[in-house]
Amino acid sequence: MPESGRRVWATGKEQMYELMKVALGEAEADLAIVNGAIVNVYTGEVVKGDTVLIKGSKIAYVGKNYGKSIGSSTQVIDASGKTLIPGFIDGHTHICCLYSISELLRYAIKGGTTTIITETSEIAFSLGYQGITEFLRAAKNQPVKIFITAPPMVTISPAAKQHALTVNELRKLFRREEVLGLGECPWAQVIEGDQRILDLITETIKAGRKLEGHSAGARGKKLQAYITLGISSCHEPTTAAETMERLRLGLAVLIREGEIRRELEAISKIKDENISLNRLVLSTDGVGASELITDGYMEFVVQKAIDLGFNPILAIQMATINVAQHFAIDDFIGGIAPGKYADIVIIPELGAIRAEYVISNGQVVAKGGQLVVQPRKHKYPKSMQNSIHLPGNFEANDFAVRVEGGRSQVKVRLIDYLTELVTREALIDMVVLNGELQPDTSNDILKVAAIERFYPSGETFVGFIRGIGLKQGAIATSGTWDCSNIIVVGASDADMAQAVNRIRQLQGGIVVCAGNKILAELSLPLGGMISTQPMETIANELYHIQQAAVNLGCTLPDIRTALAILSTPAIPYLRICEHGLFSLRVNQFVELIVD
Amino acid sequence: MPESGRRVWATGKEQMYELMKVALGEAEADLAIVNGAIVNVYTGEVVKGDTVLIKGSKIAYVGKNYGKSIGSSTQVIDASGKTLIPGFIDGHTHICCLYSISELLRYAIKGGTTTIITETSEIAFSLGYQGITEFLRAAKNQPVKIFITAPPMVTISPAAKQHALTVNELRKLFRREEVLGLGECPWAQVIEGDQRILDLITETIKAGRKLEGHSAGARGKKLQAYITLGISSCHEPTTAAETMERLRLGLAVLIREGEIRRELEAISKIKDENISLNRLVLSTDGVGASELITDGYMEFVVQKAIDLGFNPILAIQMATINVAQHFAIDDFIGGIAPGKYADIVIIPELGAIRAEYVISNGQVVAKGGQLVVQPRKHKYPKSMQNSIHLPGNFEANDFAVRVEGGRSQVKVRLIDYLTELVTREALIDMVVLNGELQPDTSNDILKVAAIERFYPSGETFVGFIRGIGLKQGAIATSGTWDCSNIIVVGASDADMAQAVNRIRQLQGGIVVCAGNKILAELSLPLGGMISTQPMETIANELYHIQQAAVNLGCTLPDIRTALAILSTPAIPYLRICEHGLFSLRVNQFVELIVD
Repeated sequence: MPESGRRVWATGKEQMYELMKVALGEAEADLAIVNGAIVNVYTGEVVKGDTVLIKGSKIAYVGKNYGKSIGSSTQVIDASGKTLIPGFIDGHTHICCLYSISELLRYAIKGGTTTIITETSEIAFSLGYQGITEFLRAAKNQPVKIFITAPPMVTISPAAKQHALTVNELRKLFRREEVLGLGECPWAQVIEGDQRILDLITETIKAGRKLEGHSAGARGKKLQAYITLGISSCHEPTTAAETMERLRLGLAVLIREGEIRRELEAISKIKDENISLNRLVLSTDGVGASELITDGYMEFVVQKAIDLGFNPILAIQMATINVAQHFAIDDFIGGIAPGKYADIVIIPELGAIRAEYVISNGQVVAKGGQLVVQPRKHKYPKSMQNSIHLPGNFEANDFAVRVEGGRSQVKVRLIDYLTELVTREALIDMVVLNGELQPDTSNDILKVAAIERFYPSGETFVGFIRGIGLKQGAIATSGTWDCSNIIVVGASDADMAQAVNRIRQLQGGIVVCAGNKILAELSLPLGGMISTQPMETIANELYHIQQAAVNLGCTLPDIRTALAILSTPAIPYLRICEHGLFSLRVNQFVELIVD
Repeated sequence: MPESGRRVWATGKEQMYELMKVALGEAEADLAIVNGAIVNVYTGEVVKGDTVLIKGSKIAYVGKNYGKSIGSSTQVIDASGKTLIPGFIDGHTHICCLYSISELLRYAIKGGTTTIITETSEIAFSLGYQGITEFLRAAKNQPVKIFITAPPMVTISPAAKQHALTVNELRKLFRREEVLGLGECPWAQVIEGDQRILDLITETIKAGRKLEGHSAGARGKKLQAYITLGISSCHEPTTAAETMERLRLGLAVLIREGEIRRELEAISKIKDENISLNRLVLSTDGVGASELITDGYMEFVVQKAIDLGFNPILAIQMATINVAQHFAIDDFIGGIAPGKYADIVIIPELGAIRAEYVISNGQVVAKGGQLVVQPRKHKYPKSMQNSIHLPGNFEANDFAVRVEGGRSQVKVRLIDYLTELVTREALIDMVVLNGELQPDTSNDILKVAAIERFYPSGETFVGFIRGIGLKQGAIATSGTWDCSNIIVVGASDADMAQAVNRIRQLQGGIVVCAGNKILAELSLPLGGMISTQPMETIANELYHIQQAAVNLGCTLPDIRTALAILSTPAIPYLRICEHGLFSLRVNQFVELIVD
């Protein structure tokens, strides 16, 4: 497949003729949906009694006067008493981690999601440029549409930085229509003026693609400085006021309601402001495995918006046309109109977002909450299931933290968990025993290590962390954010070694162990990031991992995420990678031993 | 200049740093506008008292807390009591005919228009592909932004058809960011399935550009058949009902208020419908010379919308952000926000669209209705001022209409002017005298001829026309639509020859003559289409042309347009070109002598 040859939107002349004939009443539609009420997201109306005619993957006609277009070869769905809405679009998510595309789609499709626009940093950090192109192959020829944003790969890790996406690679990606823009660039690094990021931004503008934003916590001058570069969106507001500030600055705001945070309720107050909301969008920023199973995907978010008091038509617009318009793909998707892809969900009534039928690309893909068409399982190349490159097994003393000079006490900078996501630094006095620093579970002080595992250095940094709560054992993950490290925390060096060695054996995963015993684990063989197991198994194993962690004393509600984000530059503010501790406050590496 | 090398939007890294510094309050702005009320087109609010900081061509900051960014090097405009709105964007017009860019801009700029998106069919038909690229050169480095749509060149003329834009040429044009899409494709020809047009449409979709529509008079099935191909807009509705039908189908509707038609008043009723209007746009579709001088440009249209009862903020949105959003250039223009080009108009108050300052690309370009920066006059190559290629001068008998077979009477199909724009066919009995048919001014029957003049065949067709009213003389123009013909009407063959020969001498123009005397004329030396004279001279000479025509008996209010459109396939329904009479009703050439 030539990389530049893919054309998502263009259809053949044959289909053009066929569509016109069906519209003209001169040829039979493949599928007709009759008697329904149609939510017109363009005008914000509900129009009753129109027929939707579908030929191939597209809508040919919407109206009352359909002539001979319904014939013996036409499949007819009677939507009497029902409501038709466009398929949902998730405008910001992360589906290159944890579960495979086909597993996600098992749940996404039956709820009515027909387009997903995802970030790709996880697979890029863990498998490089080839990881992105392979992901694009996996996303191809699925029952629904998947688009990506190219990862800017802002990282604190020197190893990852050396292998980050180049301008040339970005240019190659932009030859593909399914690459809609440059993914979230955290504002702090951007306004620091990082040359590579500015070059990527320039290339994105040249290619006519979107610059997706990430302005968590920014406001006023700093927010505006960031936006001057052409940033077009933000999915990080947590309040109506932050949302309002961004909308006024011309940004699209993608309200986040997913695993990492839930902001919809707080932001919903904006519905009472008397302002245009056509740049307001619903998104998930990633949905957890158990939430997918229990709540569903975008249909859950849209229903919640309605339940919070958003006008149902607006709620639907926020998950359909507003997203399509933001990404400038509204000529093709986002509404029920001739020429658009036939991505349609039939629901019982306007306020009840339960998909009775899901039609994607003109095909009934789900009915009554059951899949009719199965997502395609992609076979990743063997090499991508072999991405944990370590020089050998770890031993306990690889995690020793030695103090030179025979001192008996030192002041140590440790990572201190402040909330579920945010860390700060704490400076504490620690006793040196036999030339080493040790964890102190009585004061909730554990060791934390970051190990480079893709670019095969095996470089390791060991520090300390507070706020996790483990009394014994160790927990490790290769599913880290914004680098290709394994992160491990532990009360004992031997357990830390065991956890890392088990990940090496699994070629990726999340492992909880204690005293020579693996207590719980989830293998993540694809790039050390993605499980190949069914969604239910993943949810179950994550549950056991959390339970095992809690049994070892863990006090955090989601240990997997708590470890994964220790390396990201996107969340404040003391972070770790193979090279050391990185303070986002001063934007540089800082010493472990301060004094 | 490499054709693919032009980058409209990307700015250098230096400007990126500067913008960020000004936003951060760390460097001085070039220009600051203080104390004004700002129309926020994103939220639909008016925000008072914010300062706009501009650095280079872009807006760096909009807000109250601007630190050290206003300094000794900053030009400050005090907008106390005034209102700031984004510069106007004309989303559909024709500026490749009649007047030069620099003359148009003399008027457009001072009224507050900072972006023009124009069709280019006129220059393409009269000068071919090179005409388009030369026009792009002329549009470059002007004080305001000019974008084009590439011409689909739908024509009835076999000569023009042979030289119409190829898919390859279109692909080359789309390498330029200033080519936003494929221009208006008349719906009737498209749904006939013209192969070349479908190929151009496919190429446009592949390039990710817009398909601009032209669905005059279409509705229901035919309109929808047309739209299935991905058509994104229409500027042809004449009523609120036609507008509503198109908005519901997901089209952007560009309300036309200009020389060729004025639809704003009729369509304005749509403001009372309770629907989303963010796909509704104001445009001119071309402004006449005298209207430009008397009324102005987009400021006139916006003011009229307000006077007709549109909410002033909506009227402004319809001429700014709604247009930018339709063409997917809203990341760069259309609103007053950081990172956008500093295209700003200062008006006395919300409802009063009178530009006191016009700022374009960060520069004050007009003040108090006077230009501060002059548009650049472009020197077209000599060859483009020499485009009337005829084998030699015409003589009276070149316009003879001979009837074979010694018949004394025949039934003739003539072009019958029904309204100012629309023609129909009439079948009348005409007497054959000395083997020829003659005009009959007592029954208002004139000769009309179409002469191919670019692709140097000199091929000529002569027919008859009713409804113009001339009692004597002849009127000719090289400024015809959708082909490269000279069109001439006359009561005498000798005058017709004289008019055409004068156009040949002028190398393009509009000529009124009678009895060996040129009564009025306007030279159009650029491609036989465009005058190089000042706007005032053009208006004056057009006035004299119309007066001279009226003095000869002409009853049409605009003889220039009435002749120019005789060759277009865009207006129903009997048309003429060098090859004969063309009936749009049956989509083929029809015989002059019927019986």
